[in-house]
Amino acid sequence: MTTTQYVIGVDLGGTNVRAAVLDEATGKIVSRSANVPSRALDGAEFTAQQCAEAVKQALANIEIGTEHIRGIGMAVPGHIHPKEGEVLWAPNFKDQWLGIPLGKMVSDLLGGARIFLGNDANLAALGEFKYGAGRGSKHLVMFTLGTGIGGGVIVDGRLLTGSDGGAGELGHIFIAGGCPEARGGLAMFGTLEGMAQRDAITERAARKVAMGRRTLLTQGGFNRHNVTPKEICDAAAQGDSLAIEVLEETGHYIGLGVASCVNIFNPEVFVIGGGIAQAGSLLLDPIIRTAEANAVATLYAKCRIVIAELGDNAGIIGGAALVGHELAG
Amino acid sequence: MTTTQYVIGVDLGGTNVRAAVLDEATGKIVSRSANVPSRALDGAEFTAQQCAEAVKQALANIEIGTEHIRGIGMAVPGHIHPKEGEVLWAPNFKDQWLGIPLGKMVSDLLGGARIFLGNDANLAALGEFKYGAGRGSKHLVMFTLGTGIGGGVIVDGRLLTGSDGGAGELGHIFIAGGCPEARGGLAMFGTLEGMAQRDAITERAARKVAMGRRTLLTQGGFNRHNVTPKEICDAAAQGDSLAIEVLEETGHYIGLGVASCVNIFNPEVFVIGGGIAQAGSLLLDPIIRTAEANAVATLYAKCRIVIAELGDNAGIIGGAALVGHELAG
Repeated sequence: MTTTQYVIGVDLGGTNVRAAVLDEATGKIVSRSANVPSRALDGAEFTAQQCAEAVKQALANIEIGTEHIRGIGMAVPGHIHPKEGEVLWAPNFKDQWLGIPLGKMVSDLLGGARIFLGNDANLAALGEFKYGAGRGSKHLVMFTLGTGIGGGVIVDGRLLTGSDGGAGELGHIFIAGGCPEARGGLAMFGTLEGMAQRDAITERAARKVAMGRRTLLTQGGFNRHNVTPKEICDAAAQGDSLAIEVLEETGHYIGLGVASCVNIFNPEVFVIGGGIAQAGSLLLDPIIRTAEANAVATLYAKCRIVIAELGDNAGIIGGAALVGHELAG
Repeated sequence: MTTTQYVIGVDLGGTNVRAAVLDEATGKIVSRSANVPSRALDGAEFTAQQCAEAVKQALANIEIGTEHIRGIGMAVPGHIHPKEGEVLWAPNFKDQWLGIPLGKMVSDLLGGARIFLGNDANLAALGEFKYGAGRGSKHLVMFTLGTGIGGGVIVDGRLLTGSDGGAGELGHIFIAGGCPEARGGLAMFGTLEGMAQRDAITERAARKVAMGRRTLLTQGGFNRHNVTPKEICDAAAQGDSLAIEVLEETGHYIGLGVASCVNIFNPEVFVIGGGIAQAGSLLLDPIIRTAEANAVATLYAKCRIVIAELGDNAGIIGGAALVGHELAG
């Protein structure tokens, strides 16, 4: 009889940090913390304390000897050095974190625990690869769609991190350079993020509404500053033509990004994740149409395009997956 | 005293096949064949014979025992299965090659010699990585600019081939989806290839000439069907404003592709190769300007953008580099 081995995943966000203990073989969560405020604007030492607190909470409810816990993996929104657990750049934290040794700080608060860090979208891909929609594959690409757009790539079973951990910034690839429609937040004109991030989607809806068209979105007092991607998805699911158009157009741009990445990576699986992916086939169908029309045919034929499986647990499960990945690599 | 080890590189093109024997440690060519017609339209068995003939010619002038030759690497324009030496798709050969076991065919003609195959642009990158502009790096991206645009990527010292050898088709990434200027050959609207391949460059010049502008290009009886990228480069080097504009605009699109790939791969070195790269700083400067303006700053800061060093020998040297790469991997 083999003893069950456990890993701990930590999902550090700008608002909360969450941790969970997972059975490493299955990826099942056996215990989890509450949402602990991440104190993102108070300074790195406070955030490190909150991370340690979340880990302690996740461990408090269960009885597992520390010898059965292989390590802790943390998903962090930023540019992370892969080997040293250092945050090279994380704009969502106090004064922009630059060169914060977060792995060591949290480890020191947890008695020298073994800690690995990775970019949150990179680790979402690693989680889907090991425990989710990409199980059994060796080559995978993932987009995580949200306020921004993140990416992650698995090449021959290994996470692509690049020369100093910054690889996989797939939201920052240019798909429509020079096209005036691009907008949204800080994203560059014509990048995938600029064309398909949350603000680009809601803006696309707002412009159609401003043309005076009938739509379910206005019946509840639609306001372009308040409409959410979820409302657009709900309206589309009820057959609203304006909302369906928004998802079709957004899916087209995402599909150009998928085609580019199929041509670059020749993957077996392409995973679409993030909140808007919950629209399911209303978004996935136009993505697939555009990708099929624009990718190299022999490469497209090898690739299946699927919705992510891990949902809100992507960060926790991806972090947990990093432990075994780093210990093996 | 160690004995010198040799490798053989073969560059198979649509017109000629060339082979050379290289000192593996230095990449220096010690003997080479003539240009042997590749008989691309006569059928695979004829082309295989010509490949074997080129290898025999390269070996004829020197006295090296076969025990000192580690293997043969062949650069082939097409989609190559990395492990099996099979050409999955090569459109430049008779009836489009589909599933041609070229490695085995050539090996059989050479007494069972050990042969590896790779995509020509992939291997150009491998050659620059091992023997050229990328020596000493571990993460490299290369564009090969020509009639089409090919690409190659080195991730952590290994050639990116994807799930079945088709990865690195960097000419087929979308940089300007929906932009009407895109054109050229079979390339898709808005791909890097569509915007910056040979025909796109000459067409860009032809449109400017058609506007009646004064340019050195018309003094010798310019004809849009005859102007070559070399003539454009020569005119630009003499200060011709029209030719300089063509290189600036072309460089801008290439720079968008560079920015995308810097954001995707976080490389240390970005190599620009192919005939038009001989324009040097007239093309490289606009590439660098656009890449710097559009790539993620922390990733751009890690990457140097350089002109390829191997020139016309890219295929031969890249093929030779594949031998050691495959025997090590």
